[in-house]
Parts: sequence; C-alpha cells; structure tokens
Amino acid sequence: MKKLVLAYSGGLDTSYCAKYLSKDKGFEVHAVSVNTGGFSSEEIKEIERKALELGATSYTSIDAVQTFYEKVVKYLIFGNVLKNNTYPLSVSAERIVQAIEIVNYAKKVGAKYIAHGSTGAGNDQVRFDMIFQIIAPEIEIITPIRDHKLAREAEIAYLKENGVDYPWEKAKYSINRGLWGTSVGGEETLTSDKALPDSAYPSQLQEKNPSDITLTFEKGELVAVNGEKDTPVKNIEKVEAIASKYAIGRDIHVGDTIIGTKGRVGFEAPASLIIIKAHHLLEKHTLTKWQQYQKEQQGNFYGMLLHEGNYLDAVMRNIETFLTDTQKTVSGDVFVGLYPFQFRLHGISSKHDLMTDAFGKYGEVNKGWSADDAKGFIKILSNSGRIYNHVNGNI
Amino acid sequence: MKKLVLAYSGGLDTSYCAKYLSKDKGFEVHAVSVNTGGFSSEEIKEIERKALELGATSYTSIDAVQTFYEKVVKYLIFGNVLKNNTYPLSVSAERIVQAIEIVNYAKKVGAKYIAHGSTGAGNDQVRFDMIFQIIAPEIEIITPIRDHKLAREAEIAYLKENGVDYPWEKAKYSINRGLWGTSVGGEETLTSDKALPDSAYPSQLQEKNPSDITLTFEKGELVAVNGEKDTPVKNIEKVEAIASKYAIGRDIHVGDTIIGTKGRVGFEAPASLIIIKAHHLLEKHTLTKWQQYQKEQQGNFYGMLLHEGNYLDAVMRNIETFLTDTQKTVSGDVFVGLYPFQFRLHGISSKHDLMTDAFGKYGEVNKGWSADDAKGFIKILSNSGRIYNHVNGNI
Amino acid sequence: MKKLVLAYSGGLDTSYCAKYLSKDKGFEVHAVSVNTGGFSSEEIKEIERKALELGATSYTSIDAVQTFYEKVVKYLIFGNVLKNNTYPLSVSAERIVQAIEIVNYAKKVGAKYIAHGSTGAGNDQVRFDMIFQIIAPEIEIITPIRDHKLAREAEIAYLKENGVDYPWEKAKYSINRGLWGTSVGGEETLTSDKALPDSAYPSQLQEKNPSDITLTFEKGELVAVNGEKDTPVKNIEKVEAIASKYAIGRDIHVGDTIIGTKGRVGFEAPASLIIIKAHHLLEKHTLTKWQQYQKEQQGNFYGMLLHEGNYLDAVMRNIETFLTDTQKTVSGDVFVGLYPFQFRLHGISSKHDLMTDAFGKYGEVNKGWSADDAKGFIKILSNSGRIYNHVNGNI
Amino acid sequence: MKKLVLAYSGGLDTSYCAKYLSKDKGFEVHAVSVNTGGFSSEEIKEIERKALELGATSYTSIDAVQTFYEKVVKYLIFGNVLKNNTYPLSVSAERIVQAIEIVNYAKKVGAKYIAHGSTGAGNDQVRFDMIFQIIAPEIEIITPIRDHKLAREAEIAYLKENGVDYPWEKAKYSINRGLWGTSVGGEETLTSDKALPDSAYPSQLQEKNPSDITLTFEKGELVAVNGEKDTPVKNIEKVEAIASKYAIGRDIHVGDTIIGTKGRVGFEAPASLIIIKAHHLLEKHTLTKWQQYQKEQQGNFYGMLLHEGNYLDAVMRNIETFLTDTQKTVSGDVFVGLYPFQFRLHGISSKHDLMTDAFGKYGEVNKGWSADDAKGFIKILSNSGRIYNHVNGNI
Repeated sequence: MKKLVLAYSGGLDTSYCAKYLSKDKGFEVHAVSVNTGGFSSEEIKEIERKALELGATSYTSIDAVQTFYEKVVKYLIFGNVLKNNTYPLSVSAERIVQAIEIVNYAKKVGAKYIAHGSTGAGNDQVRFDMIFQIIAPEIEIITPIRDHKLAREAEIAYLKENGVDYPWEKAKYSINRGLWGTSVGGEETLTSDKALPDSAYPSQLQEKNPSDITLTFEKGELVAVNGEKDTPVKNIEKVEAIASKYAIGRDIHVGDTIIGTKGRVGFEAPASLIIIKAHHLLEKHTLTKWQQYQKEQQGNFYGMLLHEGNYLDAVMRNIETFLTDTQKTVSGDVFVGLYPFQFRLHGISSKHDLMTDAFGKYGEVNKGWSADDAKGFIKILSNSGRIYNHVNGNI
Repeated sequence: MKKLVLAYSGGLDTSYCAKYLSKDKGFEVHAVSVNTGGFSSEEIKEIERKALELGATSYTSIDAVQTFYEKVVKYLIFGNVLKNNTYPLSVSAERIVQAIEIVNYAKKVGAKYIAHGSTGAGNDQVRFDMIFQIIAPEIEIITPIRDHKLAREAEIAYLKENGVDYPWEKAKYSINRGLWGTSVGGEETLTSDKALPDSAYPSQLQEKNPSDITLTFEKGELVAVNGEKDTPVKNIEKVEAIASKYAIGRDIHVGDTIIGTKGRVGFEAPASLIIIKAHHLLEKHTLTKWQQYQKEQQGNFYGMLLHEGNYLDAVMRNIETFLTDTQKTVSGDVFVGLYPFQFRLHGISSKHDLMTDAFGKYGEVNKGWSADDAKGFIKILSNSGRIYNHVNGNI
Repeated sequence: MKKLVLAYSGGLDTSYCAKYLSKDKGFEVHAVSVNTGGFSSEEIKEIERKALELGATSYTSIDAVQTFYEKVVKYLIFGNVLKNNTYPLSVSAERIVQAIEIVNYAKKVGAKYIAHGSTGAGNDQVRFDMIFQIIAPEIEIITPIRDHKLAREAEIAYLKENGVDYPWEKAKYSINRGLWGTSVGGEETLTSDKALPDSAYPSQLQEKNPSDITLTFEKGELVAVNGEKDTPVKNIEKVEAIASKYAIGRDIHVGDTIIGTKGRVGFEAPASLIIIKAHHLLEKHTLTKWQQYQKEQQGNFYGMLLHEGNYLDAVMRNIETFLTDTQKTVSGDVFVGLYPFQFRLHGISSKHDLMTDAFGKYGEVNKGWSADDAKGFIKILSNSGRIYNHVNGNI
Repeated sequence: MKKLVLAYSGGLDTSYCAKYLSKDKGFEVHAVSVNTGGFSSEEIKEIERKALELGATSYTSIDAVQTFYEKVVKYLIFGNVLKNNTYPLSVSAERIVQAIEIVNYAKKVGAKYIAHGSTGAGNDQVRFDMIFQIIAPEIEIITPIRDHKLAREAEIAYLKENGVDYPWEKAKYSINRGLWGTSVGGEETLTSDKALPDSAYPSQLQEKNPSDITLTFEKGELVAVNGEKDTPVKNIEKVEAIASKYAIGRDIHVGDTIIGTKGRVGFEAPASLIIIKAHHLLEKHTLTKWQQYQKEQQGNFYGMLLHEGNYLDAVMRNIETFLTDTQKTVSGDVFVGLYPFQFRLHGISSKHDLMTDAFGKYGEVNKGWSADDAKGFIKILSNSGRIYNHVNGNI
C-alpha cells in the first residue's frame, strides 16, 4: 500500500484529508502532528483519537518545542526580528520547523507521499512545499484542499457521508497557537479598516495591578526570569503566563504574502514582544553603533526570508552565525514593568554596559577629552561639507 | 564693535554667555532664539526681556516651525524614522533647523561671530558647529561654556556679581520642547537601570475614557484630523493636544552620541509616535514589498545622518527626493484608538489599498490563479534550494 | 478571426510560431519586432519578408532605441549597474522594453493573444510574461516552444512540411545584439570551466595603436564624445564603433537566473563598460562618500530587480528618481585610453570635482585645519573603541 | 629616561624623528619597523643601521606578514573587497596591522610614548592613532612632523646640522610596498586629470607571451598555484611574481579620506586583483544569490571601516565570522589567463558548482519542471504587480 505521511492538526481540513486519502485514495495514512508549543497533552490525545478514527494507520506526535527554539526562535531574539516592525513571525516560523520534522519523519518511515491541508491562497503551502521539495524532491506532495478548492460545507458533508459527525461548529476566529505567539484571523482581518474585538484574543485581562519582572540574558539567551534560572523555552513560557494576564502583546500585522498579495492577521504574543524589546534594549547598551546597524539589516533580512519559507537558503546559516557572534556581550538584566495592555522597559544592568562613566557622564563636564579636542573633531567632521559647499556654491 | 550672534534660549548657560560676551568680552551681542515649536509668545517676550537686560544689543525671535516641518519633520514621517526603533529624533532634528536659521541670520546682519551655550560633552555642539562651519566657514564660533567647562554654580555666581539675580532654581529635569516632541533628562537618565518617574514628564494623565481619532494622509502628509482639514503643522499640534491628555508617547531612548559615547534620554512625543505609526500602517497597505524594504533602509540611514548633524550632506537631499517619490500612493484614513498611556491602530481606508479582493481574499479560495499555478510557483521557487542540496549533499 | 501579436525576431523559433499559429491554429498573426539597437534596416526588411511569407497578416517594426535609453539604459549608467560586478545587463534590459512595446501594440490593435518564442528554461519567458500579465492581464499568452518543448529539428521539419525551406544552419554561437551590448552563448558557456574562443565574439581586433577618447557627461548623461555633442544614443553608438575595433569589453557573466538555476553567458559590450566605468570615476570625484554608498546599494538593487523582470515594481520608479537626483553634479570630462582588448581611465576634469585644493592637497601640509584639530578629531573618533575596550577588557 | 617606541621606516620623516626625539627631546628611542611584505632582509639591515646611527637605543624588525594575512588579507579575499570597486586597500590595510604590532611592542617593553612620522593631512595618522588610543590610551602619542608641519628641506637641513648627510634625493614617486600591493603617489595623483606614466609603476612589462595559471581555493583561501600547494602568503607572493612580469594590476584609486577630503593614489596590485576576481568568480558558481547579496554588502562595509581605521570596532569581528561562514563551499580551481597589462578569467571547476545539470542545462529543454510549472511561477510572481496596476490604474 502507498505509504503517506499526513501533517495532521485535528482540524476540519486535515480531518477531511485523513478520511479522503485513506478511504477514497487508498493511501496508508500516517498522521503526524508537530508540537511547536501550541498543544497540551490532552489536546494531543484527542488529536490521536480522531486521527485513528478517521482511518489513519498510525498517529505520531512530535515534540519540537526545543527544536523550534534552537533552530529559529533563538535567532529571532538575537535579530530582534519583528516583521514590518510589528509581527514576531509567530506562525510563519513554526511552519518551517513543522515541515522539517514531517519530511524527516517521512524519510524515516519510507513514505513516498506527504499530504497537508493548506489551501492555494496563502503562505503556508509555500513554506511546507518548499521545505519538502528541497529536502526530499523524490517525495510526492498531495494537497486535496488546494487541488479541489473545497469549501467548509463540502468537507463536512463528505465526512458525514462517511460516518464522521464531529461538531465542526465554525469558530468565529481561527486561532493558531505556538511557543512564539498566537495568530488570530477572522472577519475583521479580511478587510483593512477594523480592529479585532477584544474578545477575539485568547487571553483576557485578569490582572490590573502593575508589577515588575526582571529578564536575565546570557549571550542573548533568556536564562532567568525574576532571578530564577531555567531553560530559555521554560522562561519564554513563564513570561507568557505572567504577561498574558495583562492582555499584553495584541496587535495586527499587515504584510506581503509570498504569493504577492497583502495579508492581515491579528496576533497575541506577549512573551515574544516583551523578550525581543528587552533584548533589544540590552543591545543598545552593550553593542557598538555599527554592530547595531549591521544587525538590524541582517535581522530584518533573516525575518523576510524566514517569512517567505526560504529557511533552507545557505545564507540563513551564515546570518545565524553572524547573529550568534554579535551576542558575546549581550548579557545582563532587563527590568520590565507590566501594566494592563502594555509593558514598559525601565532599564538594564550589565557588566558590558557601554554607558560607562569612564570618561564622564553624558552631558556633564567630561574627562576623556578637552574642548579643543571636540572643536578639532567637529572641524574635521565638517571638511567634506565645507569642500562640497565651496565647490558647489550652494546647498 | 565686534558683532556677534548668540543662540539664546533664556536658560542659565546662554544668559551667562549674554552677559559675559557683552560685558567682559566687548561683543555687540545680538541674541536670537529660533522657535521650532517649543515657545509660547509669552515665553518669547520673557526671553526678550532677559536678553536685553543681560546686555544684548538686540533680540530676535525667529519662527521656524513651518520651516522645521518642511525641511525635516516631513521626511521623518515619510521615512517612519524612529532612531533605534524608539526615538522620533525630537530634539536632534530641531537643532539642525535652529543652526541654519542662526547662521543665515548672522550672515544677513554681517556678524563675524556666532556664540552658543553647548558643552563639550554632547551632541548639540556638533550639530551647531557643523552647520555653521559648512555654511559660513568664515564666521568664528564662540563657546564659553564648552571652553571654560563652567559649572552651574560658577555661572550663577558670575551673574550675581554682575547684578543679575534671577531665580535659577535647578529644575529637577531638563526639558526641551518642540513641535516633534519633548525630551526629558534628569537623575535617572544618567544611569542605565531606572525609568523616569511619571512626574518627570510634562503631560499627566487627564483623560481616562478611550476615544478614537482619524488621521487623514495625502501623499504622506497629515492633511486632516477627524475629518477637519488644516496644515500639517496645525494637525500635528492638534494630535499632540488630544493625545497628551492620555499621557501617551513616553519612552526612553538609549543611543550612540556623535562623539562615541552612549547617551540616555527620556522623551514624551505622543503626536510624533502616533503619526509615524499611523503613516507606517498606511504604507503597509499601499506600498509594495520592495518599496517598504528600500524605504526602511533609506529612512533609517536618513535618521542616523540627521541625528549626527550630517543634514547638509548631499545624500540627504537625494534621500528626501526618494522618500517623496514613494509617497504618491500613501493617501487615506488611518483609524487610531487612544487609551491611557497607549494608542492602538485599528485600521485604514485608502483607494490605494493593495489588500484588494481583485483576486480573492487572503486565505480564501482564490480567483486569480489555480492550484497548479501555485504548485508551479513553489516548485520553481524551490529550484535554487534543490540544486544546492543536490550539489552539497546536506544542508 | 482571433487576432494575435507575435514577438517576431526572424529566427527559427519565432518563424515556427508564425507558421504554426497562423496555419494550424487559425490565428490572425501580427508579427512585431522591437528594435532596441540590434537590427539594421536591411535586417528589418528581411525579417518583414519572412514574416509575411510565413503567414503573418501584418508585420511591424517598432524602433525603441530611444525609448530603451530613456526607460532603462540611462538609469543603468546613473547606477553604474554591473550585475555581479561584471555584466551590464545587456540583454535582460532589452527584453523589458520589448515586452512593454509589444503589449502596448497588442492593446492598440485590440489583440486578445500575444505569442513569443521563449523556452521554459530561461529568464526571458519570465521577463516577457510578467510584463504582459501586469499590463494586460486580460490578454492570453501563447508559447508554443515552451509548451511543446520543441527541438530545433522538429521545428525545421515542420516548416519544411509546410513549404518553408530556409537555410537554418545552426550558428555555432547564439548572438543577441542591442544598444547596450551583445550576448554570446554557445558550447563553452554550457559548462563552467572554459572561456569562449576569440572567434565567438562579433568584433575582432582591428586597431592595435592606442588612442584616447574624451567622454563628456552632463548630469550623468553622455552628451559628447571627443568634444562633439550628440544625443546619448548616438554617443553610445559612437563609443561602440570606436572601441569595438580594439576588441574591448569581452567577458563572461555567471549569475542566478530568475528560476533559481545558475547561468553563464558571454558578452561583448565595449560601450557600456567604458561608459559605466567612466561615469563611475566622475562620480568618485563629484559625489560625497555617503552619496556613493547609497547609490551603490540602490544601483545594485535596481539591477537585480531589472534582471529578474521586476521592472514594473513601483520601487523601480522611486529608485530612478533617487538616481536622477544624485546626478546634479555629475558633469565633466572623462579621459579614457583605448588599447587592444582593454581600456584605462586616465582622469577627469569637472567644475564639481571635490578634490579641490581649497584646504590643501592630499598628503601635503594642509591649510584648513591644524595638527591639534586632527588630534582632537582622532581622539574623539576613538571614544567608542576606548570605551568598548575599557568595558570589555580585551578586544 | 623616557622610553619611546618609534614607528621607523628608514625614510626621511622617521629619520628626522629618530634624531630629533633622541637628541633634542631626550627620549630613549626604540625604533621598530613592521614588515607586512614590503621589505627584503637587505633593506631591513639597512634600516637597522640607519636607526642606530641616528640615535636609536635599539632597533627591532617585526615580521608581520603572516599576521597581516590572518588578520586582514584573508577577509579582504573572502569579502572580495575592492574599495570603490577598484582598490584592494593595499596600504590602508597594512597600517592597521603595523599599528597593532607597534602598540603591543610598546606595552611589552613598557614604553610610555609612541612616535610616528605621519603628517596631519592624511589617513595614516588616523589609522595609527586610533589603534594606539584604543589599545593603550595611557601611552602618549608623539608626532613631530604633524605638529611642526615640517617641510622636506627643513628636515634635511636639521639632519645635516646634526651630522647626518644621507642622499635624500626625492624620489619622483613615493612608493609603499606590501604583501597586498604597492601604492604609487606623485605629481599626477595630486590633480584629477592625468594618469601616472608607465615608468612610475614599480613593475615593467617583461613577458609578452600569454600564459595560464590555475588558482586553487579551499574554503576561500588560496591553497595552491598551478597545482603546487603552499601557504596562502607564499601563494600570493607567487602570483605576484608571475603576474607582475605582465605589468598587470595597475590602476588609480580615487576615494574619500577619513578626514573628509578626496584623495587619489596609483597602485600596482597584480596578485590582489587576480586573486580577488578569481575568488569572486568561484563564489558566483558556488554561493546562492542571497549569499552573494549579503556578502557584497558586508564586504563593502568591512572595507569601508577598515579603510577608515575602524578595525577594532566589534562589528568587524562579527563580519569576519560571517564571511568565514560563507566560505564553506568556496573550494575549487579557477583558470586565469595572463596577458600584457591584463588578465582574463577563463572558468572554474568545483565540486560545489551550482551550475549543475541536475535539472537540465540553462536554456535547454529542462527536466526539473514543466512548462506549466514555469507558467504558474510567472503568474504568481506577477500577482503583486497585477494588483498594484489594478488598484493604481496606471504604472
């Protein structure tokens, strides 16, 4: 029988695929879900139950949270990556790691087919297919939803005909949860002018009293929260748990899809926003001007290629190496205040802080140079402009 | 007598200069203040009174608010310029225009000397001197505070000796106000770890009920607020008046000074932050991916050179031309919600909105291309990676 | 009858298309060739004769040399564009203008179909189709060679069967000639290790005695050669005529195709190489450091998007505006020496030359600043490094 | 006695310094010359003799050729660094390493003073002083030539008075030789319009018969010439020896000095030009498009900062790490032809060559994708432009 690995999430689309591919198409369907932070163990059990019920020969849950951090999230922090200055790439980044895990699984079990439930209108099909085709061009990709342009109702009807009658009530908002944030799509995000209502976001305001947290970074990685050391993944989850009670980190991302259209998506990402901004502040104190200048360009570029599914381009490894190298001095504490719907960065403490008073404080009478030094500096700094003005008459 | 133009603000440093240069040094002192949005007409009258009392032969107030907007602020909006992703360059930008106005005034009145009150430890000396030296290298620059490293107390004592006994109580925070924002320096900004207290900021929370405002842009310029048309300058002031009641727009900027040290400064800039973010959102809807990519690089670069006093470099004019050219389609309404201490962007409406449904909505079944088109697209997009992987064995 | 515009070059592929589309497919074929500098009027007459003979209802030759210069070549000069530091984009640039002319012609005559002879393996199909689909998405694109993967022999056989028996002896090298250079493909360019033989290049060494030419630029445009004023197009042709006798400007370009593969192509482009290098030298004398820095980035980016067929992206217009703005001072003479197989830039003369001796010559005792100024300059320039070293102990 | 380390080259300026500082100023002068490839052992002996004769207490020659390669030249090759697309940074790069060696020597011997012979008008003073001040801010820098603006004649007269009567006939051209090239300054380079005469260049045409050489790179480093393995330094010297007989590698660099003026300098650098261009070609075959894109930006930036003496900025180490990481696949042979006054790159051979025929040759009927794939690819690639055009009416 033709062995097929199905990227299975438990939702309507991939449930349809599970039934359709096993029953109508005669594939031996091996359902796989890759957990990059979105599923609890209860949810995974429920997904497994459904998968087998729908005709899958096997179900496997791959825990890729740590892999997701090591392969992607770490560099998104190092690079302070916010797509269009807004979006921490919550979902795009996960897809990459999910695709890699799935294609590796397919190669391991010797499957000649991979199926996924993406439509033909979005980014995810590109992210999945590109990874699959590059790593395993010999594996055929099967995408019933994309190929048949199936509407929700048709899928539900098909499943009913085949004895599957789950309560597929359409959630008003489609939610994608992961370690690095949650995306929220729905009515309002299909047009340009309206915000999502508060109720669309998974977390609601529970805590109105401000509080402070301290994030400790070591070479760019989040090694402690409020002084308690733990792994970066656990620390991210801890920040998420604390900050989501303040309903922090909601926003809407408007951006260019890989296929040339514009897209709009809401997200709630308290941990990623707080950590990136805190990390960035620490860098402003500990990196030179030119380090920051180059990091910004490389970080943005990294985010663009990642978003577009180009994770396997060799330049991505080069940029990761670059970003890692810049983090040598990015160690210290960042003090953050949490308030309803927002956070503030109070300040930092670091032994690598370049705001040293070695030569005198900013704006104060200085010890490292004289007034004449400053005047000479400015005079020569003006040379280029003076010559230009002299030669070209007017500005 | 030696004619000298003094950049006069009414503060202790420039008051000292006025007295010292006119009495001890025998200059004919022409005091000039350039208003880029920070002074009311009452304050200007008071400044005039002091200047003449201190020995100035004349006092002139130059109204440069509109000039400031035309020469600088406009491009900061076009370029979405936030230094280090945070600071709207409130004060740095003003200095440039003040210096140009002063040197032009000095040339007009035939002064051979220009004096200012900057110390030798900060950015402003560079911004002032560079502009002076490039536009009028023949004019000598006189800087008593920088040259004599005078402390506050010495200046007050000198003024007292000379019969000037103003109440120079040291403000706890040094405040610089202008059209594009207000900077706040003080005890906490001299070190790295503490935020400014709420009380340090000029505006306090007065309005707790959320409200919405609509900003209308025409080719990148803010032409109306809540549907009322006015000049961009008036509109900026209107947004400032509305938003400052919510205590919006406070933050601390940490950055690299022109002289190689790190500096930290608080600021309150509700109008500039809201306008830049609203403008940026409108661009996300109306510009192509590559326009945004290039604009971000050019805008950041423009901000860096402006911050460093390099305003007169010919490349700045080229970038301004570029930025202006990108604004052709940046027209439409942006809907903004105001809340205590924060604002949110709800959405936009524009006839240039590229999130059109011409080919189908994002994520929905599409009309502009088929599943096979998408598959062909992805296949060929994968070519480079497939070849790389084929040649180099592993990733 | 179904009206179709065929991009016709007179070669085997498009001759096949003319016959096949008119006879077998029943199209009313309107053959069009767009001259961007490659065709003499004799060749055009011959192309016309063939087109009609093959069944075309009409034939039109569009002279687009001036358009090609105005829309593209001008900016390639302003931007000193050499793809991968080597290739003046000779052929890629032409395709864009040809496509625009053809689609405009098709719209004018009300054709619902456009046909071209590109294969499915190269860049040209992308350049043609993208322009067509963007400007006239309602027009259907017909590409028999791509669709049927036709080999040379099959095309010749088909034509013979249909009474067309031209001497299609395969040229050893495929040559594409235009205003901005000539591309040369053949056996050696299909692999990586061999150069093209001298004989493959269209021009052969005729002149062994060195000579000098003077190129005069006015705001970046080539307005005179050896003191004789003429249009830029005529001047480019004049440089080509002079320099090709020295067999100057041969090289091989290795680059990334739009479809993700690597490609290799020889070219002979004496005029474009000499003009770009001369123009670039003039800029080194007349532009500031930062103008050059930004121009290089923008120019390279422009070249990349042009090469990839992205000419219609709005950012291209923005960059053209930017580049034009930088050319205000790029006026003067450039002195060039011509030698067998090479040229040398002797120097320039310009009233905008920033290598003025206003402040003293380079390396000589200077007049614009003192030793103390220089020492102050360097001291403060070292601040950042001194602080970094002080804080971080070692480098 | 006050211990002073003098950067001594044996030329007039530093000879003056040796005598003046030891005799008139009472320093204990320790003369040091750092060989970065410019001195033969005979020359070093002669330099030593002079130094001691002029009053130096000791003389030390530091062989820094290998260090120069490891610290700088290697990265100039990895980055294909040609300042302003022309100049391999021959002399600027050496100064950095010389300064580091000298300041380390001074720290080792406990000297409190460092002297050098630079004037106040050029780049070298900045390169030297910055390195000194950053690594050893406690050491005082002494620069008699800069401070006293001494003319040649005054120096010669002073030396004569003090019994030193060397034949200081002024060379018509000032020559600086090193591993990475030789700079040539003189009458013509002081103005903009004239080339240096052939005779000004150190090497003259000796070999008129073309020949071929093969350069073998391993991870970006030149490991063999014509199949013979040796160290990169030896290989560079070998290429220099072979190519200089063809008088290859002459050109004039026009660029911006660190102090804001324009400067012009001739150079002869056959090995560096051939090696960089050969290396670059190998990269075109073995790196992805985006690797090349990012490398070009980083490499140019690296060259700019190096040229400006900013070698110790932490970003330089980050970029070196990045560049090294990109070289993993840059291995293979490059075939180069040598001709009088020029060289040509014939081609390359590499197991990492991405111009593989895995999916079919460029321009040929392809095997990796279908005509429909290509059409789908182009269709979707056109989406952005089609939407833009649809929304904005015209282009």
